[in-house]
Amino acid sequence: MLSRQAVARLSPRTSSAQLIFRRGSQRYDAVASKRINLVDRNFSARRLYSSNTRGPLFRPLAPWALLRAPRPQPNIRFLSGKSLPQGRLWILNFAYRSAAWFGGTIVILGAGVVAFFLYDASTYRETSSYQDIHVAENALSPIRGGPKNLPIYDIQIDDDDTAEMQTQKDKPKLVILGGGWGGVALLKTLDPDAYHVTLVSPTNYFLFTPMLPSATVGTLELRSLIEPIRRIVSRVKGHFIRAKAETIEYSEKLVEMSQMDYNGNEVRFYLPYDKLVISVGSTTNPHGVKGLDNCHFLKDIEDAHTIQNHILTNLENACLPTTSDEERKRLLSFVICGGGPTGVEFAAELFDLLNEDITRWFPKILRNEVSVHLIQSRGHILNTYDEAVSKYAEDHFSRDQVAVLTNSRVKEVTPRSILFTQKDDNGEPVIKELPMGFCLWSTGVSQTEFCQKVSAALGSAQTNRHALETDTHLRLNGTPLGDVYAIGDCSTVQNNVADHLVTFLRTIAWEKGQDPETVHLTFGEWRAVAQRVRKRFPQAADHLKRLDRLFFDYDKDESGTLEFSELRELLMQIDSKLTSLPATAQRAHQQGRYLGHKFNKMAKAAPGMKANDIIHGDLDETVFKAFEYNHLGSLAYIGNSAVFDLGGGWSVMGGLWAVYAWRSVYFAQSVSLRTRILLAMDWAKRTLFGRDLISW
Amino acid sequence: MLSRQAVARLSPRTSSAQLIFRRGSQRYDAVASKRINLVDRNFSARRLYSSNTRGPLFRPLAPWALLRAPRPQPNIRFLSGKSLPQGRLWILNFAYRSAAWFGGTIVILGAGVVAFFLYDASTYRETSSYQDIHVAENALSPIRGGPKNLPIYDIQIDDDDTAEMQTQKDKPKLVILGGGWGGVALLKTLDPDAYHVTLVSPTNYFLFTPMLPSATVGTLELRSLIEPIRRIVSRVKGHFIRAKAETIEYSEKLVEMSQMDYNGNEVRFYLPYDKLVISVGSTTNPHGVKGLDNCHFLKDIEDAHTIQNHILTNLENACLPTTSDEERKRLLSFVICGGGPTGVEFAAELFDLLNEDITRWFPKILRNEVSVHLIQSRGHILNTYDEAVSKYAEDHFSRDQVAVLTNSRVKEVTPRSILFTQKDDNGEPVIKELPMGFCLWSTGVSQTEFCQKVSAALGSAQTNRHALETDTHLRLNGTPLGDVYAIGDCSTVQNNVADHLVTFLRTIAWEKGQDPETVHLTFGEWRAVAQRVRKRFPQAADHLKRLDRLFFDYDKDESGTLEFSELRELLMQIDSKLTSLPATAQRAHQQGRYLGHKFNKMAKAAPGMKANDIIHGDLDETVFKAFEYNHLGSLAYIGNSAVFDLGGGWSVMGGLWAVYAWRSVYFAQSVSLRTRILLAMDWAKRTLFGRDLISW
Repeated sequence: MLSRQAVARLSPRTSSAQLIFRRGSQRYDAVASKRINLVDRNFSARRLYSSNTRGPLFRPLAPWALLRAPRPQPNIRFLSGKSLPQGRLWILNFAYRSAAWFGGTIVILGAGVVAFFLYDASTYRETSSYQDIHVAENALSPIRGGPKNLPIYDIQIDDDDTAEMQTQKDKPKLVILGGGWGGVALLKTLDPDAYHVTLVSPTNYFLFTPMLPSATVGTLELRSLIEPIRRIVSRVKGHFIRAKAETIEYSEKLVEMSQMDYNGNEVRFYLPYDKLVISVGSTTNPHGVKGLDNCHFLKDIEDAHTIQNHILTNLENACLPTTSDEERKRLLSFVICGGGPTGVEFAAELFDLLNEDITRWFPKILRNEVSVHLIQSRGHILNTYDEAVSKYAEDHFSRDQVAVLTNSRVKEVTPRSILFTQKDDNGEPVIKELPMGFCLWSTGVSQTEFCQKVSAALGSAQTNRHALETDTHLRLNGTPLGDVYAIGDCSTVQNNVADHLVTFLRTIAWEKGQDPETVHLTFGEWRAVAQRVRKRFPQAADHLKRLDRLFFDYDKDESGTLEFSELRELLMQIDSKLTSLPATAQRAHQQGRYLGHKFNKMAKAAPGMKANDIIHGDLDETVFKAFEYNHLGSLAYIGNSAVFDLGGGWSVMGGLWAVYAWRSVYFAQSVSLRTRILLAMDWAKRTLFGRDLISW
Repeated sequence: MLSRQAVARLSPRTSSAQLIFRRGSQRYDAVASKRINLVDRNFSARRLYSSNTRGPLFRPLAPWALLRAPRPQPNIRFLSGKSLPQGRLWILNFAYRSAAWFGGTIVILGAGVVAFFLYDASTYRETSSYQDIHVAENALSPIRGGPKNLPIYDIQIDDDDTAEMQTQKDKPKLVILGGGWGGVALLKTLDPDAYHVTLVSPTNYFLFTPMLPSATVGTLELRSLIEPIRRIVSRVKGHFIRAKAETIEYSEKLVEMSQMDYNGNEVRFYLPYDKLVISVGSTTNPHGVKGLDNCHFLKDIEDAHTIQNHILTNLENACLPTTSDEERKRLLSFVICGGGPTGVEFAAELFDLLNEDITRWFPKILRNEVSVHLIQSRGHILNTYDEAVSKYAEDHFSRDQVAVLTNSRVKEVTPRSILFTQKDDNGEPVIKELPMGFCLWSTGVSQTEFCQKVSAALGSAQTNRHALETDTHLRLNGTPLGDVYAIGDCSTVQNNVADHLVTFLRTIAWEKGQDPETVHLTFGEWRAVAQRVRKRFPQAADHLKRLDRLFFDYDKDESGTLEFSELRELLMQIDSKLTSLPATAQRAHQQGRYLGHKFNKMAKAAPGMKANDIIHGDLDETVFKAFEYNHLGSLAYIGNSAVFDLGGGWSVMGGLWAVYAWRSVYFAQSVSLRTRILLAMDWAKRTLFGRDLISW
């Protein structure tokens, strides 16, 4: 029997379906609207009209039919294609829209959270990952050999781990020493199928060095600046070994490695290579100053951690009732030696910490007795930057009560003070003493022990005391061509154009059948030589723009041709204008990318060359251009403000917007999605909760 | 002249405004809809009708008028009260709604981001926070005094820092030793205006200890478990001193503090108190085992850091080609001594790391040679939990290849192995040796050096070798009533009901004019005594439920009254049933909260008591009830699974949902919004990027 209730359920709105019925009777009259038609076609209006309808009327009342019947409409409607509610006041429409948008946001956010949890649940491994694997016998106990009869790690223990790894086994062995900017840029550019890659480094992470000063004061977490090397290496199906390079055996293509075992004994082994890239970076330059063990350096994540602890220990000790006034002032005297970007940014971050966070949580007397000094040997801080930038930074610091001591040279660092000479008004050096509770030493870079050994072993091929010399293809001078490369801080690209004069003239001399030293160059021939110089020494290109002027300037005897000696003088003049590349992350990054692209090309060209028996000779030059450094600008954070030196006299300086721009640059430069998200989280954390003032 | 173009601009929809005009003529016919009327009242329909209309028609065509004229409506509309677009297909309606919701989400999220950046910009302090402040002379050079003539830190250097701090100066001095669970719970409960609070601790952070095992393997960041104490203290306008308590001078109400200064010399001073709370926690229990310096402990954030490094160093060393098979297996043998919650959770987290993350990044051979052993002296792990829980955890571990060695007692730890005795089938102890590369020692707690000194100084008032004894009001036994309290792991609440029998009987005896020892208790009087016992020893209440049965059971001579000796036996029976409270965060937390509430009450009652000359006597008992521990249950993470022992035989065990529940409990328990957000971030980070495998 069709009860009143059942009808109401079938058609919740009386305007949609009008049913006339008599209880107890077998006859039903009903006028159903299109609505019911749309919802349930089996239960159409026509059936409701039929007069002796026991059968057809009872069927739609079965439970499933009720389920399919239209439900009462709540006020908040779900996404549907039905016509929008009509004839309302504008305020109701506005409310409807707002509610819909707000609700939509909640729904979408909620869906995101649920999806995240579902994904999270899928990341746990319920079953054991134990599985049968194959490891070559030679990988577990390597055969000994080489000059020192050490184990040669020819087959690695994870060479057979996966099918992907196995395909790499017979490819040329590329060994990268060091996991800094250069090595990582190389890895990120390299074709994953081109080489059998092994990265060796004493640290198993890549460190985003430019933001290290921020990590010393808790603005950023140390973890956010770090990316595990194994993750980066996995892109090229490569290997990582935590060890230190000791020496290189060029003739047998072996690198000798050392590592401490668990008992503190040093163990050594050889790692074979086909191509070796040295990108081991640099160490701090002590400049021969005594007492540097009383200073902190800022090269590594551990340094950042120690610095953080030292700053906070000083602050805590300064609060103690047993600390005298004098001692408190000394504890709160922070000194930074070196006015380069690292020193300047550290000073800025430190001041931020002291100015913004200390007053909030520590006794206020600390803030008043804090002092920050920046000692710089040159006339300006940030002296490699545009002068306007230096000036701006100095002004900013003086407003921030960071004392900048220029033209000052540190003599000695004692546990409680710093001795330095500063020129007085007459230009006479005066020795001054500054009590200090904390000192950071950041005065440029110096060669690592390994590089010194490499340099010494190569004898006269290496003449630079500060870095390994390479040619413009970044090949280490004095080593077999195309075997060993050096990039980053540890290397310098030789721009000795004049020294290669004979090489440039050889072709022309050969054509003329003359000795290169007696050849006379016409303007046309000079253009050809200049073209070759540009290709070989891209850095010299800037100085080879007005060829006609150069030609006439250096044609001293006005013979209309350039003689050997004239040409030599011309090129030496250019050499003198070329500066060595800066020891920056930017340079290392560009060199790493350059090598990556070149190695990819070489791997592609290799089969063809092999087929044509081209094995020796200058393969690098054949397949790829020489390295050209392209300066994109320098930037520095100077405390709620940032400066940008974009090169060519362009510079930008500014307040908070510049800080955001500065962050954006590093955010974009950051090594992985992981570090980017962590950086964003850290900055948000600072906003919400301030810096973490914790030492342990 | 009103051109066709101008009209079109004024009324983009021809349906809204119909204009009839003749070019070149001065007469215009126009039918403008209500629409134009609404938009620009100056340019009303009536003006368009006027026939010689050079003036009025030109005015609206001025540039500003065009700007004010209605613009073409884009498809995506902004929030407005206009009527919704009508007469469309359902698919268009659906699209409209979806677009509105999606757009709304973007707008709201975008507004959130913008608001965040605006807030962020407001958090940088542009100006120097240097300001004049007042510091009392006595704060900078405290007057000496006390038994050892040390500086007495009566006025602190930040007492005058703000107006708020100044109001605290003359309030009773509350000194809290230790910034763990007890101290922090007390601080969070305390009325900010009641006391002059000073918290003293060697560490300047509160550590969320229950999640420490997660931090050892990089599931959580160390920072996320830490809250700077100064932030917590600032709620009560209190002070923090990083120092260590040495001794207490009860008669002069002074605590002697020690701290290392910058030169490594120990300096000492006195801190005066009116109320002193000892919540210094505990140390690891060595159980007299030799060679524990070869083990790690897990008490502090530094321990977690060292453990993390040790695990990763072992993994890296296991990859080296110079590592022999045997040595690799030893390096990868992880042993945990102690099957309590800490040991179990660490084993679980370690296994997660090895099972989920190692295979992803390290050579697969490592995963196959890893072993995890859990050595437990009792018959089951988690032996304080419900037996079903222990069983479940053991089953889970055996499935996960974590070997549980029960009934095993460690004899000695050497640098490369662990010696332990295990009972064989005949119950005979057999000595076994397990090579190990890593060992964690987590076998219960022991008294700190400070507590030992305090206990020894109080002589016979303190008889427990393991903890400081307090009464049920948490007052340290043997010290002036209401001066010194002890809470948390370092303390134990004495439940010696029988010892206080005479006290309970005193009132009744006095009413009857009898000696308490000769009094005979009727059932009614017994009820009154029981009531008083319950109030003084809340923990005994559970055993005082069936008073009638107890009365008849212990009325041995069936005299209808309880004699002194009978009553004594009854209470001793109850005493034997009372167990000492567990050394958990939960207990410390409850005790801290209890003290906080009590101190608030006492501060409120103080003026009234002073007015009535109530200075001595049992003020604690007068104003507040005795401490009653309320066990809320125990929980433990056991590796993609968690167990809950809810007490009274209720226990819950399960997989991933239980893990989420376990996290939720700790999330809710977490100390601040900051740590909660950090925890959520860390969990999300693990989901997205796995655990951080970095050692430094």
